[in-house]
Parts: sequence; C-alpha cells; structure tokens
Amino acid sequence: MCELLGMSANVPTDIRFSFSGLMQRGGRTGPHRDGWGIAFYDGKGCRTFLDPQASAESEIASLVRRYSIKSCSVICHIRQATHGRVCLENTHPFVRELWGRHWSFAHNGRLKGIKRWPLEFYKPIGTTDSEHAFCWILDQLRARFPTPPKRTRALWHAVGELAERVNGLGIFNLLLSDSRCLYGYCSTELAWLTRKAPFGKASLIDTDLTVDFSKETTSKDIVTVIATRPLTRNEEWTVMKRDSLVVFRKGEPVFA
Amino acid sequence: MCELLGMSANVPTDIRFSFSGLMQRGGRTGPHRDGWGIAFYDGKGCRTFLDPQASAESEIASLVRRYSIKSCSVICHIRQATHGRVCLENTHPFVRELWGRHWSFAHNGRLKGIKRWPLEFYKPIGTTDSEHAFCWILDQLRARFPTPPKRTRALWHAVGELAERVNGLGIFNLLLSDSRCLYGYCSTELAWLTRKAPFGKASLIDTDLTVDFSKETTSKDIVTVIATRPLTRNEEWTVMKRDSLVVFRKGEPVFA
Repeated sequence: MCELLGMSANVPTDIRFSFSGLMQRGGRTGPHRDGWGIAFYDGKGCRTFLDPQASAESEIASLVRRYSIKSCSVICHIRQATHGRVCLENTHPFVRELWGRHWSFAHNGRLKGIKRWPLEFYKPIGTTDSEHAFCWILDQLRARFPTPPKRTRALWHAVGELAERVNGLGIFNLLLSDSRCLYGYCSTELAWLTRKAPFGKASLIDTDLTVDFSKETTSKDIVTVIATRPLTRNEEWTVMKRDSLVVFRKGEPVFA
Repeated sequence: MCELLGMSANVPTDIRFSFSGLMQRGGRTGPHRDGWGIAFYDGKGCRTFLDPQASAESEIASLVRRYSIKSCSVICHIRQATHGRVCLENTHPFVRELWGRHWSFAHNGRLKGIKRWPLEFYKPIGTTDSEHAFCWILDQLRARFPTPPKRTRALWHAVGELAERVNGLGIFNLLLSDSRCLYGYCSTELAWLTRKAPFGKASLIDTDLTVDFSKETTSKDIVTVIATRPLTRNEEWTVMKRDSLVVFRKGEPVFA
C-alpha cells in the first residue's frame, strides 16, 4: 500500500516536519520504494516534485527536506506499485485543470475494473488505475458543473458521492485538492490532526525528531495534517471511519 | 523579453550545459528576474520545476544545475514579466493534457487582445496572455482532432497554422512539446543547433564554461538545442526566419 500525506493551513506553512517522517517510510521504515511525489499550492499556482525513485534515497526528496516551501495546501504520496510499472507518468500526485484551477490527486488502494469506466474529456497519461479514477471524477464534475457551483457545499457533496462510487470497486483512500479545499476520503485508512494555539511539542514515530510548534508558529495559525497513519506519537489523531469524507479549508474541517 | 530554451534528443541527454548559460540571463547577464521554469519529459511522463524567483539566485535552479536529469525533450523559460504579475501560476512552462499526452508550452512576446478569444475546454489558471494562447491552441487542436491524427504531418501543419494566427496579435516566439515532438515557432527571435558526431568543444557566451561533447556522448547521439539567441560562441547556429515553424523529433528537424 502507498502512504498519503496532506496539509491544509490558514497561513503558508512549512510541511518539512511531517514530510521527514513520511519519507522514512519510502524505503527505510516502510516498503514504499517505487517513487514519490508532492504537490504544493501557492495561491492558484501549483508546483509538483515527482520522482520514480525511492524517497529515502532521492536527491529531490532531500531538496524538499532542506528547502522550506511554505504552502496552504499540500498533497504527498509515496508509492508501492501494485498496478502500473514504476515510471514518471505513473507517479502521484496527478494534476489536471478544471474551471481554471489545478486539481491534484493521490490515491492509496486498488480499484478492480475502473479502466472499463468510460472517459470523456480527461485521458490518463500513465497506466495506473488511480489516474483513470482521477480522470473519471473530473469528467463527472465537469459534466455536472460546467462552471464551478456557487454553493461550495454542492461540490463537497458531489466529490463525496463520486468517491463513494469509485470506492465500490475496491480500496480508495484519496487525497484531492483544487487549491481552495483539501478532500480526504477514507476507504480503509486515513487519520488527521489539527494543530492550533496553544501549540506544543510533537515527536515523529518514524525518525528521531521533535518539533516545538510554539516556537515555529503564531497564535493565529491553524494547520491540519492528514495521513494514512498517524505520524507523531504524542498527539491525538482522529482516525477516520471507513467510507467517510472530510473536507478542510484554511486548516480546519468544514465538512464531514 | 523572456528567454526560451528547448532540447530534443534521440537518447536521454543532460541539458545542464545549456541551462547554465541560460540561467545567467536570469538576473546576472540579463534582466529576466521574474521567475523561471523547466519541463523535462521522461517517456510519457513530464516533470516541471517552477520558481517565481530570479533564476540566478534560485535554490531550485541550483538543484537543476547540479543534478543530472536526462531527458529527450525539454522546454525552459526565463521570465521578464510584461503582462500578469509575478507569481507561481504565471510561471512558464504551462502544462495541460490532450489525447493522454502532457503538452508543455513556453512563450516569449506579447499578444494584444488574445483574452477576447473564446475558450471552450481549457481555462487559464493565471492571468498571462501566454497561458490564454496555449489554452486556445489546445482547444483548436482538440476540436479539429478529437483523437490524435494518424498522419503526424497533419498535426505539424495544424500547429503551424494556429501559431501563425496567434502571432497576428503581436509577438509569439513559442516552444511547445507533446512529448513526441518539439515545436519552435519564430515570431522575431529563435535559433537552433544540432549536435551530432563528430562532436567538438562548445563554449558558452554568458559564462566561462566549455564542454568537450566528444567526451560526453556516443557517436549515435543526436541533440538539438533551440533558444531565443545562440548560447555558444563557437558553433554555427541556424537563426530562424520570422514567422516560421520548425519541428524536431528525436533530435533532428523533421519539418520546417
């Protein structure tokens, strides 16, 4: 299985602490040796770093670890290939444009038969079931909403409903963002945590690193981290129920 | 004006030599301080590095200079903002998917009134005239060819014709790739050079660096570099005629 990591924040926030923990699962404490990728939003812009190599050895991963890219919305994925060969075009997150927004997508799981679902506008570039599912979801959203719905809640409902349909084919743990909101759909495994004042210390499970967030933040900062499994040992993570959706905006859950 | 750099090769080739010269134009020997970006293809996959900062000071640029990413097709752009503020979503190259291929696009020039041209499927994320032109070209290709044309030459003709129409609005020096071919359209300034056996030495104009390609290549390698202005002082560059198109595949011109 792959590892997912997402972040939603109300101010541009450095994700390096959580990233350091996750990257250990890429070949060192975990079996996820088949590439990794990360998408950072900066306003409407989106920048991705993709690497088909094991993250624990990747030069690009070490750049991301060293170099502070602050963002309000991040999606990260470490791959253990189950379907589709190990190559750049099969590396998550996948990105497409809809309504003049970058949508990014990362998936953990397996979807039997998704490739028989017809696609209209978006076509996969690689061969994963994940990218096919992403194209299908965007196709459905585009058909339902030729322009972005005025009631954001209608979009949240639609994403939840589409994720549920895809989930009927197998396992569909999902992170999705359109730069404004971060969506997490839990098929089997997904947990999240919101940090806000008063901030304390947090210690990673996968590597010997502790951060005192009270020294790194202001009292107004609100940051949510979502991951396949909890990344820290001394904080209270919300383990999501199976078959449930959560939506974050500016660091806080707005829909669940 | 912005600076463009593209590469087409028959074997995965390191672009760092040309990139080093170009990056000097980003804030040191040139006025292009408003960001830069590069897209590398690896098979059907495409990876971009985007930075709204001046390239001569960018940490990501220094990673790209140090780290050998070999590719058969590259597009790079250094921006001097004329239209649209300096931010990530306005940083070239822009990327969209058509026919299950990543299309990447970088532009140098200015297009008056392009934003009044209607768009159907592809919508700009940023505010540049360039991204609007890119969306318009892909819209037209999609309308003309719902599936990729069997005769590749029909696609080359269509790209040339569409570039010519856009060029009617001002200055449209263009690099475009769909992973298979690299297109260069010269509105006012674009020059290219093919290196193949017997290889010799080349010296950059913008910085004190010489490479002996006979030590870096095999006799079968064919590599074309295309740029706004010649990058080396001791090689024979083909300076393109105004309002002309050239298409490269596997390092060689196939259509002009």
